[in-house]
Order: sequence, then C-alpha cells, then structure tokens
Amino acid sequence: MASLDEGWADPARLYREGRKARLLLDAAREAAAEAVGCRADELVFTSSGTRAVHTGIAGALAGRRRVGRHLIVSAVEHSSVLHSAEALVAEGGSSSEVPVDRTGAVSVAAYADALRSDTALACLQSANHEVGTVQPVAEVAEACRAVGVPLLVDTAQSLGWGPVEGAWSLLTASAHKWGGPAGVGLLAVRKGVRFAAQGPVDERESGRSPGFENIPAVVAAAASLRAVRAEAAQEALRLRELTERIRARVPQSVPGVSVVGDPVRRLPGIVTFSCLYVDGETLLHELDRAGFSVSSGSSCTSSTLTPSHVLKAMGVLSEGNVRVSLPLGATEEDVERFLAVLPGAVERVREKLGASAPAAVVKEESSLIVDALGKRCPIPVIELAKVIGDVPVGGTVRVLSDDEAARLDIPAWCEMRGQEYVGEEEGPAYVIRRTS
Amino acid sequence: MASLDEGWADPARLYREGRKARLLLDAAREAAAEAVGCRADELVFTSSGTRAVHTGIAGALAGRRRVGRHLIVSAVEHSSVLHSAEALVAEGGSSSEVPVDRTGAVSVAAYADALRSDTALACLQSANHEVGTVQPVAEVAEACRAVGVPLLVDTAQSLGWGPVEGAWSLLTASAHKWGGPAGVGLLAVRKGVRFAAQGPVDERESGRSPGFENIPAVVAAAASLRAVRAEAAQEALRLRELTERIRARVPQSVPGVSVVGDPVRRLPGIVTFSCLYVDGETLLHELDRAGFSVSSGSSCTSSTLTPSHVLKAMGVLSEGNVRVSLPLGATEEDVERFLAVLPGAVERVREKLGASAPAAVVKEESSLIVDALGKRCPIPVIELAKVIGDVPVGGTVRVLSDDEAARLDIPAWCEMRGQEYVGEEEGPAYVIRRTS
Repeated sequence: MASLDEGWADPARLYREGRKARLLLDAAREAAAEAVGCRADELVFTSSGTRAVHTGIAGALAGRRRVGRHLIVSAVEHSSVLHSAEALVAEGGSSSEVPVDRTGAVSVAAYADALRSDTALACLQSANHEVGTVQPVAEVAEACRAVGVPLLVDTAQSLGWGPVEGAWSLLTASAHKWGGPAGVGLLAVRKGVRFAAQGPVDERESGRSPGFENIPAVVAAAASLRAVRAEAAQEALRLRELTERIRARVPQSVPGVSVVGDPVRRLPGIVTFSCLYVDGETLLHELDRAGFSVSSGSSCTSSTLTPSHVLKAMGVLSEGNVRVSLPLGATEEDVERFLAVLPGAVERVREKLGASAPAAVVKEESSLIVDALGKRCPIPVIELAKVIGDVPVGGTVRVLSDDEAARLDIPAWCEMRGQEYVGEEEGPAYVIRRTS
Repeated sequence: MASLDEGWADPARLYREGRKARLLLDAAREAAAEAVGCRADELVFTSSGTRAVHTGIAGALAGRRRVGRHLIVSAVEHSSVLHSAEALVAEGGSSSEVPVDRTGAVSVAAYADALRSDTALACLQSANHEVGTVQPVAEVAEACRAVGVPLLVDTAQSLGWGPVEGAWSLLTASAHKWGGPAGVGLLAVRKGVRFAAQGPVDERESGRSPGFENIPAVVAAAASLRAVRAEAAQEALRLRELTERIRARVPQSVPGVSVVGDPVRRLPGIVTFSCLYVDGETLLHELDRAGFSVSSGSSCTSSTLTPSHVLKAMGVLSEGNVRVSLPLGATEEDVERFLAVLPGAVERVREKLGASAPAAVVKEESSLIVDALGKRCPIPVIELAKVIGDVPVGGTVRVLSDDEAARLDIPAWCEMRGQEYVGEEEGPAYVIRRTS
C-alpha cells in the first residue's frame, strides 16, 4: 500500500519521485536476491513467473546457440517450460523430456543420460506444482555442471519455503505463488552464464525485461517473500502435519482412492489424490458448495479433455483427481472439516454416475466387450468395474474407449484392483484379465 | 482495493474464487473494449504498454509473413515500436521510418508513399509522447486500408482522452499513462486482421499474452479508464488552457527559448520547450529543488549522450529541453508558480555555464574557428554565441564539435538567432555565416 503511494513514478527519471521509485526498486531487488541466494545484479523482475521462464529459456538457448539447440526438460515441468520447449522445436531445435517415476520424481541417472554434446540448456523444477514431489535439483545441477550445461530451476512452488540447494545457473519464480501479488516474476541468471535476451528489449531490468516496471507490485513481492520466509520453517512443520493427515486418512474414509506424489520428499502444503469412479468436475463443484476450493488434473476439468500431463507422466490414476493446496495459516479445523465432508461428496458423485450399484448379473462368457466409445472419464472405468465380475478368473474384458483418460486410468484401476492389464489394441481397446 | 480482495484467484479455475476472478476479468475487458471502441473478444490485457506493442507488432508481422517483411513506423514513435523495428531488421526484415515536420507530425502523403507491396504492417502513434503533437491517424489509416495494409496505432498518450478515430487494425495502450496502475497494457486486434502470436504462449488471454493474469491491476485499469473518460472533455479544456499559458508565457519571460510541438493539434496536458545555453540535467535539478518534476530530451540527461530521437527527427533545438506533463487535476496555482520559478532557474544555469557573459572582444577576422571538441551540450552553442559578434556580417564561424547534440542544436540556434547555417564539414565542423 505504501508503495502504491511512493513507487508510482518512472525509476528512469531524474526528478525526486523517479529517484524514490529507483530506491524502492533497488531495495526490492536486494531483498529478493538475498532470498534467492544470488547477487542483486543477477536478478531481474519480470511481469509473471511464466514470463520469467519464457525469457530465461529463450535467452539461455540463444546464448549457447553455438553449442547446439537441444533442450532438456522433465516430463512434469510447468506448462510454461513445456511451451518454451515446443516453441524451440517449432523453430528447428530439439527437446528431450526426462521421464519421472510413479512418485513424480526424475532420476538423476536418467537426467544425466539425457545430456548431449549439443545440449544448450537443461530445466528442472524444484518441486512439482500438481503433486508436490521435490526433485533432486542439487544432484542434477552437479551432473549438468560436470558437462558444462547450464541448469534452469523453476522454483515457483518452493521459493517461499527456502532457497534452492545446488549449483543452478538460472532460476525463475512467481510472487503470487508465495502469497505475493500477481504481476511479478523473478529471473536470476548467474554471472558467467551466457545469456542473450530475445526479441525487442529496452534499458529496463538490465535489458532482460522490457516495459515500465510495476514497482508497487515488485515491492510487495519482495516484502511478502521476506515475511513468508521468516515463518517458513515453523509453518512448513505445521502444514506438513496437516497434509500428512489428508494423505493418511482419505484412503481410510473413501474407498477406491489413490494418493499420488512422493510421501516424504514433498512440499509441505500440497496433497493430491484420485478417486475411482468419480467425475473430477462434479466433485470439484460438490466440494465448492461445501466451501472448499480445490483443483483437479482430471481430463473432464480441462478444455482439452486430456488428463494433466503430470499425472500422465507419472502413470497414475487421473479420474476424480483432487489437488488440495493448503494456504499459509490453514487451520486444523478446516482440514478436519474437509476430511469430514469428502466421503459424502465422493459418494454423491458416484451415486449420480451409477457407480455405487455395479451390475450384478453374472455371465459365463470368458471374454466380454464393453463399448464405451464416445463416453468420457470416468464412465469407461465405471463400466469396466461393473462387468469384471461377469467373466471368470482368467477371462478378459475389452474396453473400447476413445477417451484420452482411459489410457491412464484403466491400467491404474487394474493396479489398484489387483487385476492384470494386458495392453492396448487398435480401436482403441484396452484389454484387462481378471486375476481375482 | 476491492479487487485485491476479490480478484486474487486464478480465473482458469472452477472454484468460486476462480469464477469470481473470471467475472472481474470479463467485466474489465468489456469496459476497456467499450472505451477503446472494439469488441471484448478483440482485446487482451498485457503486462505493460511496451509488451502490448512488442506482442502486437510481432504477431501482425508473423500473420502477414507471406506478404512480406516490411514494416513502416514514424520517426517519432515510442522506443518500444522502434525496438520492435530493430528486432525485425536484425532478423532479416526491413523497416522504413516516415519523417516528421518541425511540429513532429507525419504527412499523410509521405506516409502513403512509404507503403510497399511487401509491407506487412504500418505503425503510427495517436499522439507524440514527448511533444504532444497529434498525428493524422484517421487519414493514414485510410491510406493503409486502400492498399490492404493493417495499421497499428499506439494510443499510449491519448486513450484516456478519447477513442482513436479511423479504421485502425491493431491498437495498443498503457494503463499507467491514463493514471491507472503499472503492470497493465492493452492490445486490441480487429477481427479479420491476420495475427500469429510469437514465442511460447498459453491458454491465457486468447493465446496472445501468456502468464497468470494480474486481475487486481486489470480491474483498476478498467475502472480508472472509465473514471478518467467521464471527466475527459472538461479536463481537456482546462489543461489545454494551462499548457497554452506555458506555451505563450515561457518565451516572453525566458530569452532564447523555443517551444516545440504543434500549437493546435496537440494533447491537452503536454508542453515542451528548449532553452539555449542551458544544460538540461542541471535545469531539471534546479526545477526539482523547486518542487517540479519535469523530463527532458536533452542529450545530457540520457545515458547515450544523444538527444531524444523525437527532437532529432523534428530538427529542433534539444539543449535545455524541458517536457512539462500536467497530471489530471493540475492546478492553475502550480502552473503560475512554475512560470514564476522558471526564469530564475534558467538564469542560474546559464550563469554557472558562463553563458550570461558572452566574450565582448571584437576582432576583424572574417573567419573564426571555435574548438569545442570534447565539450558537451550546451557548451558548443554557448561558445558559438560568444564569438559570432567577433566576425563581420558575411564572415563565418566554424565550430569543431564531436558532441552529437551539436548537429541538431547549431542549426536550431542559427534559425532562432537569424544567422545562416552553411552546413557540416568533416571534423565534424559546423559552419555558420553571420547575417545580422
């Protein structure tokens, strides 16, 4: 608020309001650099975390153009990183996606294997935005440093909790993720890292982020980062205990739930789970009515009708996906109320979908076909669950489905239900063998 | 303020805070589109006016790549437009600068002449940011439309005063210029205009402006635009009278002043003048001490030591340049106090520079050389003024100067003082013939 009064002027001007704005901007940069763990002249403010990522990747790629045009990203990066990779490929460069395990983490060895002699840049998030899994950044940074490839670390999810360990070369972050204002991102580029800003630039922010600086927001971003950090250690313990409750108790109170993400190496405030036979969008609305604002990586909640790329890369169940992000200061009472409300909400959604009353007809065919073409998640899995009892142990069910989510959710269902996933046939058809 | 409380959430989310944020964003878009005079789905919010210009130019150029890679700009556009032109040329395209007359306006005929069969885009500001001159946008738009070339109009200086006349194709603006917050620009692209957003994009803002929307600032921008417009007609009259006073009275009270910019076709609140024998930076500090925050296009106030490209293109005096921007609500008392303070401030600067006491020695040589090499603006002109009386009428003075500003200011001095500017010789040396 003070900065809206004091910091409105153009910091490039010589008159006193301009000089005051310049002082505020410099002080915010010092504070943010201290929190990041870099020098003030290595850090610029951008207009969003997305912009920081786009600018950082484009500049680092251009700076190492002579080395090559190969980019490495993990398969679970934020979309801003993946969009940058797509833009590179569209311009004739190449990009590799390092896969993740079922917890959502990359392996250091797999990451190191992706490094090539023409690799210009490698990117790795500090922690995942959908499932909270923390990545082995320091080890990957070491592998990159060993072959002279700069590593850009997207710290959007974690910077509020603490600085990033390890020898990163570029770092990005987003103020609204730590509770700061919208409209402010950070881009740090270590001295000695080759960097050539792309597109038109001007004299602002070391020529790396053009346009009139949003100083009131920048000041608020730096102040809030400092405030959040002061409480971070204590608040992390508290939130970790609350998310641990959700991780432990949801599978007890709701049947057919799969909690996803690493149980130990994870962010304090994020917990994600998926519910069989549930339509994610309907569940979100049920929870919204009860006063809970959660997100979902289910296909039915996205405009593209595909499950979140993170859940896809992890190979875990995507239907009925719920992401709970506890804000700083979230209370135990709220978490308890959420845990009390959730089972009924899931049950109501399952009832609406008819998933609570599986078809009980027993048939003797050793092979069944379920035609779920044109049906969207979670219907194909619901139909599968209804008929699996109709084939004898050893018999198979073929689910015909053109829903993108089925490719992920049918194998996930098999794993959860102890059935055998045989594979995918043209159609597409998914083949399941009853084993119990 | 309300929007900081209500509009913090992600408008892409389904929960109620997200839906509320979406409603606020939609309402802001409707309001801004109404003020611009376009459809809501033609308008996106960017993170600054500069970003709107960069995005608009790059997208329009890419959309018409098949037609050609030629861009037209006026010589007095905002630096964001000129930087975009430079980026195009660096990538192998071409750009033409349409010159302006001494008032700072382009001629419609000259603009039309610049249109080529491979012209992908033309750009023209609605009014100039340094001297306030209004450009013939409607007529230039007509000339562009006649040959099927889209026109991008940068309305940063004028959108608060009213919509742009004429058949523009793309339009950009900046909220902080109308008194709104930093961090918000507008980009409007008329339906039917070919446009291909460049670089990585996402699902935000119709794929034209990636990154989490700054909704509180966007709402404040739309609200302030509406508020400013409600008072615009009345406030324009009032400010126009005040700037008219400055235009009329500064030359009366300060000797050796040249008021620049069109006296009639101009913005209500901007007035610019230059003062002979004055160091712009020192004058700014004198005025700052008296409580006035003004800008300057003098070379000594820029890091590049060249005069503003606007004053250069106009061919007017750049030394001692002062740009007065009256904010909305500026009072008559403040303007009167400025007019009272200015003559003394100028006189003090001239005294410091020794410009008030020209050398009185009379010599009979018909030709003199003034060695001002290594001396910065306004010294070369001061030295010239000191010796011009030392040559007889018909005699010449050669000023040796490696200061970029001399090329502009010596001819301007000749015009103001009724002496003949003969031309520039290698050295560089500027030759002046005494005619009175």
